[in-house]
Amino acid sequence: MSMDIRTRLSAQRIETPSWAYGNSGTRFKVFAQPGVPRDPYEKLADAAQVHRFTGVAPSVALHIPWDRVGDYADLARHAGELGVSIGAINANVFQDDDYKLGSVTNPDPRVRAKALAHLLECVDIMDATGSGTLKLWFADGTNYPGQDDIRARQDRLAEALASVYQRLGEGQRFLLEYKLFEPAFYATDVPDWGTAYAHCLRLGPKAQVVVDTGHHAPGTNIEFIVAFLLREGKLGGFDFNSRFYADDDLMVGSADPFQLFRIMYEVVAGGGYTDEVAFMLDQCHNLEPKITGQIRSVMNVQEATAKALLVDGAALRSAQAGGDVLQANAVLMDAFNTDVRPLLADLRRESGLDPDPMAAYARSGYFETISATRVGGAQAGWGA
Amino acid sequence: MSMDIRTRLSAQRIETPSWAYGNSGTRFKVFAQPGVPRDPYEKLADAAQVHRFTGVAPSVALHIPWDRVGDYADLARHAGELGVSIGAINANVFQDDDYKLGSVTNPDPRVRAKALAHLLECVDIMDATGSGTLKLWFADGTNYPGQDDIRARQDRLAEALASVYQRLGEGQRFLLEYKLFEPAFYATDVPDWGTAYAHCLRLGPKAQVVVDTGHHAPGTNIEFIVAFLLREGKLGGFDFNSRFYADDDLMVGSADPFQLFRIMYEVVAGGGYTDEVAFMLDQCHNLEPKITGQIRSVMNVQEATAKALLVDGAALRSAQAGGDVLQANAVLMDAFNTDVRPLLADLRRESGLDPDPMAAYARSGYFETISATRVGGAQAGWGA
Amino acid sequence: MSMDIRTRLSAQRIETPSWAYGNSGTRFKVFAQPGVPRDPYEKLADAAQVHRFTGVAPSVALHIPWDRVGDYADLARHAGELGVSIGAINANVFQDDDYKLGSVTNPDPRVRAKALAHLLECVDIMDATGSGTLKLWFADGTNYPGQDDIRARQDRLAEALASVYQRLGEGQRFLLEYKLFEPAFYATDVPDWGTAYAHCLRLGPKAQVVVDTGHHAPGTNIEFIVAFLLREGKLGGFDFNSRFYADDDLMVGSADPFQLFRIMYEVVAGGGYTDEVAFMLDQCHNLEPKITGQIRSVMNVQEATAKALLVDGAALRSAQAGGDVLQANAVLMDAFNTDVRPLLADLRRESGLDPDPMAAYARSGYFETISATRVGGAQAGWGA
Amino acid sequence: MSMDIRTRLSAQRIETPSWAYGNSGTRFKVFAQPGVPRDPYEKLADAAQVHRFTGVAPSVALHIPWDRVGDYADLARHAGELGVSIGAINANVFQDDDYKLGSVTNPDPRVRAKALAHLLECVDIMDATGSGTLKLWFADGTNYPGQDDIRARQDRLAEALASVYQRLGEGQRFLLEYKLFEPAFYATDVPDWGTAYAHCLRLGPKAQVVVDTGHHAPGTNIEFIVAFLLREGKLGGFDFNSRFYADDDLMVGSADPFQLFRIMYEVVAGGGYTDEVAFMLDQCHNLEPKITGQIRSVMNVQEATAKALLVDGAALRSAQAGGDVLQANAVLMDAFNTDVRPLLADLRRESGLDPDPMAAYARSGYFETISATRVGGAQAGWGA
Repeated sequence: MSMDIRTRLSAQRIETPSWAYGNSGTRFKVFAQPGVPRDPYEKLADAAQVHRFTGVAPSVALHIPWDRVGDYADLARHAGELGVSIGAINANVFQDDDYKLGSVTNPDPRVRAKALAHLLECVDIMDATGSGTLKLWFADGTNYPGQDDIRARQDRLAEALASVYQRLGEGQRFLLEYKLFEPAFYATDVPDWGTAYAHCLRLGPKAQVVVDTGHHAPGTNIEFIVAFLLREGKLGGFDFNSRFYADDDLMVGSADPFQLFRIMYEVVAGGGYTDEVAFMLDQCHNLEPKITGQIRSVMNVQEATAKALLVDGAALRSAQAGGDVLQANAVLMDAFNTDVRPLLADLRRESGLDPDPMAAYARSGYFETISATRVGGAQAGWGA
Repeated sequence: MSMDIRTRLSAQRIETPSWAYGNSGTRFKVFAQPGVPRDPYEKLADAAQVHRFTGVAPSVALHIPWDRVGDYADLARHAGELGVSIGAINANVFQDDDYKLGSVTNPDPRVRAKALAHLLECVDIMDATGSGTLKLWFADGTNYPGQDDIRARQDRLAEALASVYQRLGEGQRFLLEYKLFEPAFYATDVPDWGTAYAHCLRLGPKAQVVVDTGHHAPGTNIEFIVAFLLREGKLGGFDFNSRFYADDDLMVGSADPFQLFRIMYEVVAGGGYTDEVAFMLDQCHNLEPKITGQIRSVMNVQEATAKALLVDGAALRSAQAGGDVLQANAVLMDAFNTDVRPLLADLRRESGLDPDPMAAYARSGYFETISATRVGGAQAGWGA
Repeated sequence: MSMDIRTRLSAQRIETPSWAYGNSGTRFKVFAQPGVPRDPYEKLADAAQVHRFTGVAPSVALHIPWDRVGDYADLARHAGELGVSIGAINANVFQDDDYKLGSVTNPDPRVRAKALAHLLECVDIMDATGSGTLKLWFADGTNYPGQDDIRARQDRLAEALASVYQRLGEGQRFLLEYKLFEPAFYATDVPDWGTAYAHCLRLGPKAQVVVDTGHHAPGTNIEFIVAFLLREGKLGGFDFNSRFYADDDLMVGSADPFQLFRIMYEVVAGGGYTDEVAFMLDQCHNLEPKITGQIRSVMNVQEATAKALLVDGAALRSAQAGGDVLQANAVLMDAFNTDVRPLLADLRRESGLDPDPMAAYARSGYFETISATRVGGAQAGWGA
Repeated sequence: MSMDIRTRLSAQRIETPSWAYGNSGTRFKVFAQPGVPRDPYEKLADAAQVHRFTGVAPSVALHIPWDRVGDYADLARHAGELGVSIGAINANVFQDDDYKLGSVTNPDPRVRAKALAHLLECVDIMDATGSGTLKLWFADGTNYPGQDDIRARQDRLAEALASVYQRLGEGQRFLLEYKLFEPAFYATDVPDWGTAYAHCLRLGPKAQVVVDTGHHAPGTNIEFIVAFLLREGKLGGFDFNSRFYADDDLMVGSADPFQLFRIMYEVVAGGGYTDEVAFMLDQCHNLEPKITGQIRSVMNVQEATAKALLVDGAALRSAQAGGDVLQANAVLMDAFNTDVRPLLADLRRESGLDPDPMAAYARSGYFETISATRVGGAQAGWGA
């Protein structure tokens, strides 16, 4: 293994989102967990633990309005003191009663204006926190055929995106997220990568597509999309998570680790293993503890990345060029079948970290502390 | 058209559930609606409106604990005064914090005992209300491979079902519901009809399978399952709703009316168009008004049933026996393509109802009344 | 109903493909049928029957090399004598042994050159036959991860498409078809509309996307794609067929007539009901007779179109603007639930056709004639 | 690692099918390969190579009529001389023109009788070859709603199965295979495990279900089915292969190695890792060479089995009992993430085999020999 792989692995950055530390659930029930943060400051403290033990999670995505504070510069300063920084700003325009029939695609112009104002406020927060990335996911869509005009909603979407694009400053971009369904159950306004891509293409280089690994139709080849978007210069980043069925939001790498490896391989092969492509987690730890769930997920991404970097490119290209189907596949599988955990443990030791982040966190007593002290107040929650 | 079809159509009974009149939503947001009931008595009042205007929805399913009252006999009496009766009792064992890792399949025996006690309480409520049907849907399952032992959970499930079965009295039965996924995202304990069927078969004739039309994997041929279960004497009823993607819980007939027709055709052809097979609605009107949503759904089931009854059985059998693929298909399509709305309007007139239930309900002023008067108190809600 | 609807319905044109008249099947078995054509001339004769009885199927798509003849001008003249014309030219680059690992995306430059030459030959045939449309579907893809480089294959694809685009003359265009999978089982080189769209966008106005209704992942909202492509000016046409599972290639309208209606509604609403958007059939009549299968399919498209044209646009827009979910949906459903068969029968009578094309064809004795006379020779076949 | 794991791994038996050595393809094209066998004797010779280099593939499944010979005892003797034996007998009742509308479920009693006679002939061949297993997969089903009566087809199926069951001798069983779709595209007569299970249950212990890993709806949890069937004593065996989309028939373990591991874990945990459960390959090497494709597949099953055997059962049960979701999952993942290739190489060395079967086979020159000598004659082919 070349030193280069070790260097590249050590340089990886994986962003965790503030909402992962709050309660989450399904429409059937949100099960509360002990020690859950009550405000954005406590969320950042938890995220800092993930970075403390993994060494590769130095930024935290915010979600507005869940993370609204009076003084964003103060929040950013607080993050800095904890050893982390503010990452992407996520705009939430789906939980206000006004958004029942959509936000930026709502048939009512008043609601559209309100939603747009919220998006622009998020750019203000980027300015205040130094964040360079606005993440746009719209719950907009319809539940019944005929409910609204599919094309008119695209026109409204295009108009809102153009306004946001205009507002972006130097070094700022937005990432447009697509999702097949949920909460809209008939037609979602940005249902697939093609829709997100077409809108971003019209707007320019500051608009890119973000791939949430749980947002596709069954059978979709996600790594193809990754390779294609990289070829087009339009891959902005990932929202990582796992799914067996729909947008299950399980821990990344827990449902199909081979798929995660293939995705990371295309990232590496397509020149996307740079700071330009953001690796973000976007998961719901409905049953498992939050901080350990995030640590495990970060490690899963690291393991998939390590395997992707281990692929013998020369051998692969040679087998591909020769049309040797089995050998080309074998080169890829050889990397996947390698146990990279010792390598990653070694790299952690080298960086002064514990080789086993899960065990080290467990020993730290942090969970016991927050469980004991975070009583009273309202636990942060995701969802309705 | 034979008089028989008119008679059979008029005799149809479609059950609406109490929870359909309360608020519902997705994990992202529950949008509140005006006029929503605050207690089971108000829910029954709303359900009575659906019956008042359609004439075919005379019973209402309850959900325990959502519909817990001090005096069930009084609730049943109240229903009777409204012109409706208590239908199936649904046991909810998924919203208590104890049920985080399952109810009757929970690894913890204490939780299992608690869940079983709840199920048995539901049979008590059947006794008190005169209900003959217990509907069992379990949210039980696991989110991660390895989380729990798949087989051990089946053993626990079998044990609980046997205890409930034992408790059933004369004229009582339970219907076991299956669902592919949600809220469990890796392995659901009753994921498909085969699992429900196998458990019911072991127990005896008082255990039957209920088919929720939104609970299948993509591509599943639901009418095949209906035909098969009828052949085995194990079809207990339906939870009707529509889906484009997952368990979307849209109005029945709104996503694929041809599928609903095919299902109703198999019901009719298989001898299931009797009181033995319960036609129940199980939907979430997240965006549309509740009572009108139920009226529309009842009408959709009626239309599909009318078309199913119109199929020319003799012509169909003849084409099938002769291997005439196109003609056999054409016979079926001929019924589906018929506009049965005039027939149903005529039947309503005959029964002293308004031929247009939607318009008649709108004119009635009921919605305006409940919107004005049901202020204060907590709106009934479904979900978390 | 306005006269306009009748006029627009009468003006509809639906293209049938030459291969629909030959034998087809699955990988398991191709069942031969009596009377199947032995050459392109006989295929055209059969296609002319479909037009004779429906009046709306005046053009026939060819498939090269299946329809290779010595003199294409003569074939076009023959078509004219039969009352039909040559429609789209389909390029088949998947049945030569050379194409085992792909055609235009093959790692071997020799094979790519051969495939490109075939595509250019198809443009020559367009010149000779007066066809304005080249349809490009590529079976290209890979079966195993690692088998070939996803991105390199896109580069090769782009290069081939550019060469074909260059070659197109005045009044000629190509339609690029996408397909999720089959015959490639890991990564298909044009798997979705986004990929086809992106390639076409780069090339210019003579490159458009064709939507095969059977080529999507489960749950894909096809009418959304239709609306989106129309908004972008990139919808070139349809390959119509039906599916319950994968690319089943059943008769259009036979699996989900409501979906077909929704698609046709978006075509009409989006201004796509013009000669610019080609309505083509692309089906496999594995079990049913070929000519009757085509007639039925043409009628199914007509019925869906009639319903789409019947939608009360003003009422729909009003309900949508007011956010009346149920009413907007009801307006759409009202058109779908209408029995349009009498209207279409009436229009046929008006045009001097038999109101019942299926019965008229059956009475014509054509099938008996071809069954008796087309003996000896090799039946035309689709597939391996 | 306990010695027991090594012993159990060495004792594994994986059956390869005769048809895997012949040509296969999709409906679009069957690409011929050099050296492909021309008769059953040559197929057995190829299968013997797989056993020679892996040491765990000592039996070969036959397919009737593809493997029809004059003297089955001679064929069995020939197998013995090659060091292998005859495994399951597969009955093919889908390639005769008579079977266009079905075999045992055909509406025509003459065809049903013919199909049944074929099935009984297969039992005769079991007697002659010493095979203990009849594998029944039926292509039967319908393409269009209404084409035939779903329930009547079940009656016919039940009748045929009962006749076959009656004919089975001492030590003989049949395995009933289910498949969601293909070649039937509307309703398949044995579409899911529940249907196969219900039929087998009625018949008795000699009827069991076989799980083809490519025959499920998207999202189906196959290991759940495995665990459930083992609990019911009805799991007869596997047809292993891989899929990304439909019944792709790729090499087992190539699409989702984690799924294969989970399946093997349930086999082991459920007591199914015995001779009672047959591990069979059922794949189509459309692009890759046949014999190497089989060797690789056998190795993939071995690797998944090794990982399954490595799961720390005590640690797993402890974490499960304690409700420790992350730890229970981690115990499973720990086994999956282990690189078991050195262990398997070691076991091969111990058995006198080359540690690298792929390389050893390549060096053997066998492929060059058969490519040179098997010229003339008709290559064995699968499919149409």
